[in-house]
Amino acid sequence: MSASVRAALIAVGDELLSGSQSDTNSSYLARELEALGIAVLSIEIVGDDEPDIAAAVLRASARAELVLVGGGLGPTLDDVTRHGIAAAFGRELHEDAQALAALRAWFELRRVPMSDTNRRQALFPVGARILPNRAGTAPAFLLEHEGRAVAALPGPPRELRVVWAEELVPWLRARGWLGAPIDERRFFLFGIPESTFAERAGAWMAREAEPRMGCTVRDGTLTAVLRARANSPESLAALERRVAEFRARFSAEVYSEHEWDMEHALARELFARNVTISLAESCTGGLAQGLLTRVPGISRVFTQGFVTYADEAKRSALGVPSELLRAHGAVSREVAEAMALGAARVSGAELALAITGIAGPDGGTSERPVGLVWFASALRGRVQSVERRFPPSDRDSIRRWAARMALFLGWKRVCTAD
Amino acid sequence: MSASVRAALIAVGDELLSGSQSDTNSSYLARELEALGIAVLSIEIVGDDEPDIAAAVLRASARAELVLVGGGLGPTLDDVTRHGIAAAFGRELHEDAQALAALRAWFELRRVPMSDTNRRQALFPVGARILPNRAGTAPAFLLEHEGRAVAALPGPPRELRVVWAEELVPWLRARGWLGAPIDERRFFLFGIPESTFAERAGAWMAREAEPRMGCTVRDGTLTAVLRARANSPESLAALERRVAEFRARFSAEVYSEHEWDMEHALARELFARNVTISLAESCTGGLAQGLLTRVPGISRVFTQGFVTYADEAKRSALGVPSELLRAHGAVSREVAEAMALGAARVSGAELALAITGIAGPDGGTSERPVGLVWFASALRGRVQSVERRFPPSDRDSIRRWAARMALFLGWKRVCTAD
Repeated sequence: MSASVRAALIAVGDELLSGSQSDTNSSYLARELEALGIAVLSIEIVGDDEPDIAAAVLRASARAELVLVGGGLGPTLDDVTRHGIAAAFGRELHEDAQALAALRAWFELRRVPMSDTNRRQALFPVGARILPNRAGTAPAFLLEHEGRAVAALPGPPRELRVVWAEELVPWLRARGWLGAPIDERRFFLFGIPESTFAERAGAWMAREAEPRMGCTVRDGTLTAVLRARANSPESLAALERRVAEFRARFSAEVYSEHEWDMEHALARELFARNVTISLAESCTGGLAQGLLTRVPGISRVFTQGFVTYADEAKRSALGVPSELLRAHGAVSREVAEAMALGAARVSGAELALAITGIAGPDGGTSERPVGLVWFASALRGRVQSVERRFPPSDRDSIRRWAARMALFLGWKRVCTAD
Repeated sequence: MSASVRAALIAVGDELLSGSQSDTNSSYLARELEALGIAVLSIEIVGDDEPDIAAAVLRASARAELVLVGGGLGPTLDDVTRHGIAAAFGRELHEDAQALAALRAWFELRRVPMSDTNRRQALFPVGARILPNRAGTAPAFLLEHEGRAVAALPGPPRELRVVWAEELVPWLRARGWLGAPIDERRFFLFGIPESTFAERAGAWMAREAEPRMGCTVRDGTLTAVLRARANSPESLAALERRVAEFRARFSAEVYSEHEWDMEHALARELFARNVTISLAESCTGGLAQGLLTRVPGISRVFTQGFVTYADEAKRSALGVPSELLRAHGAVSREVAEAMALGAARVSGAELALAITGIAGPDGGTSERPVGLVWFASALRGRVQSVERRFPPSDRDSIRRWAARMALFLGWKRVCTAD
């Protein structure tokens, strides 16, 4: 076993270089590699161009033992990754009879006629090891060359993940290339600005600190990563001490040590305590429920939700009194609370969350600006509410943040049974 | 004006290299640059490490006139982009008094105490031009060095976009660096597999074809890009001819020539024809409504939607008869149609869309496998329905695809007024 194997990632596609699509495969592979103890040295993006791909493969294989190339294995004529890798190492392409047969079988099974262009998916550089792709038509492959390994993986994320997990990881293990991962811990915090976090974290974030700590912010969520400097007993002990200190210092903000997705943290508590839930959304228009129902098996605790965009819908679907709407406006504590109580009553859920706000770009006033959102939660008839003013920005950001805020408030109420 | 200016992008962040976050800034910048006629040669991702950043900046400035570095300008100690760029060109960092005053004013305006760590955001390489950041606390900067320009932009996408549009684009224009963009056209298609598309497109996709054509697939949507080879009259005429041929050949599948987002295509038709809409969702749990309500001003045509996850909710909220649910099951033509008619009746909308399916991972049977989804639409009382079997994959993919499919069906019905 060699702990010194390093990886370089290459993502192929004009659509990535022109920005019409963003590269999610590399972050997936980087995450996986890191968990397996293989450091990622670089990520590079190149277009659908044979010489560019060949040059990037040579650059990457000059510095890393393992090169993963994602994308450009499809059936269309702009898919030239196989050509680029072959060119990099001076190999020919040949059609593999077994791969062609598997390709035909894939189409027959699905009763879809196989296009002639699909045949190019049975082309491989001479000497390549074919990696079957259970999830799609593009078989992947692996080429070893002078102690380096270059793997070509399909671009569709689902297919890339299947080939990675089912083919490449076992190969890396057999090859003895999986190192000892550097231990790290993650904390996911909601509702704390980055500068406040930095001040409260203090010297923990210094560049030379042990363990090393980094943080990032997205959709109102701050992710803090603590990473040991080495696999030594001292480094690991320092990591454990810092983890305990971190938990104590940020107990009010940490909602998970496992995952960014708030909906999973909430669902776990709902499942554990057998609490049923409903949601009533105005400005978020179904986004919070859309998040919650990502969780498999959520039907155990979620049966019904409400998207009440207009005042009349708040009245008819949730029984919000017209007087409240008239007196306080739809974006108010009173209406948020009535929405939550109404959602609980109509659905029969123990916990109901309500969101009503101004997502913009229009509809704001000086008193009720774009970014103002009222949240309410009703737990077994007891209602709480809170107002938040999101810095005026784009509609999407405000809505995403508000949906996650509602789930966070629900999580807090369930955890504290308050 | 020089049409030969090229750009290289660098995204900075351990979170990008470790995969805990993916780099969306580079795709944004690539899109913008391309539209301004500046070709993007490469995109590279490096960690929060001063020497790595310095090396990447030198590599990038060796091949491109314009280098854009995104991220690593925050207030925390792991933000070292300013140090890396200064090191690359052998410059010192100094604290800018005016930037510090602006920083203090920003915090005062928001009545948030300014942390000491925020002071480092007033540090700049000697000789740098400061680019104000209206959207956040991290000022950006631009450094010219031997005919090259290196700009450091804040990592949060909203801030990066503001500084890009308000500061950097005007600077590029004044510098005469905006070239003539190569003309391209996009088509967005739904419901056509990539291999079928490739076969029907035929030689249009050949690597040497004029115009050049590429395609990508995501969430059931195929994006085809046709790009002229040059700015010559011949190339542009060839592009126009191909655009006309493309429209004719794929008229049944193209839903937009402007944007990927199906909800905008649908909303545009609803607005133009003054058609009101409602949605009833089961397996998608609010996702389709969440998409539709992304559109600003959607309240003109959307007042209310339904998330009826359990059978009982379909009965009580939409009036789906218990007998139908018992006889056919929740995932059936009969129930989808009853959901659509119920949503139209309760909401008063002219058009109602319904989605009921099995998103998995559990709940599938051999007769009704995971991935089976029934869609129905009711337009002024006339109902249509269709079944789709999505290849069994992950829950998220099935749900996202189903939500977009429902919007596509709605778009088709409104367009054909059928």
